[in-house]
Amino acid sequence: MTPLVESFGIAVRQSREAQGWSQEALAGHSNLNRSYVGEIERGKAIASLTTVEKLAGALGVAPSTLVIRGEAVNEQNLARFIKLTSIAC
Amino acid sequence: MTPLVESFGIAVRQSREAQGWSQEALAGHSNLNRSYVGEIERGKAIASLTTVEKLAGALGVAPSTLVIRGEAVNEQNLARFIKLTSIAC
Repeated sequence: MTPLVESFGIAVRQSREAQGWSQEALAGHSNLNRSYVGEIERGKAIASLTTVEKLAGALGVAPSTLVIRGEAVNEQNLARFIKLTSIAC
Repeated sequence: MTPLVESFGIAVRQSREAQGWSQEALAGHSNLNRSYVGEIERGKAIASLTTVEKLAGALGVAPSTLVIRGEAVNEQNLARFIKLTSIAC
């Protein structure tokens, strides 16, 4: 899996939790299978553009917004990694 | 196919043509199959997040930028449809 797939999953989980929703609730609102939503959140399944659209629609944001949130998580992780590396070296 | 899938395809084609690239060139730069790139551009295949990432990387933009371009095409089409409807009615 690419870093974006994992970061996207974290962004979906964060966005879902911000709504106070369970995975089941998000799955229901986005018309997706609950276990599939879980796999996406754990970075174990790669969402298609249609799935991104469904999740974003359920969460009340544009598909691009959800991708931007994934990219932001990715950048935060990268910044943390660089900081840890600079401490270790 | 959802409107976003088709609009995303148009955005990919426009972004590729803006680079002056053939489908073959984009496929080469993004490490994807040429016929798959053609299907995405025609809205006949749904790109996964990883494919969006590969195409965006080849085109030198963030994955979210490519999705935003797709959303913009979608909105332009919608505005055109509303205009045509208002002329017809």
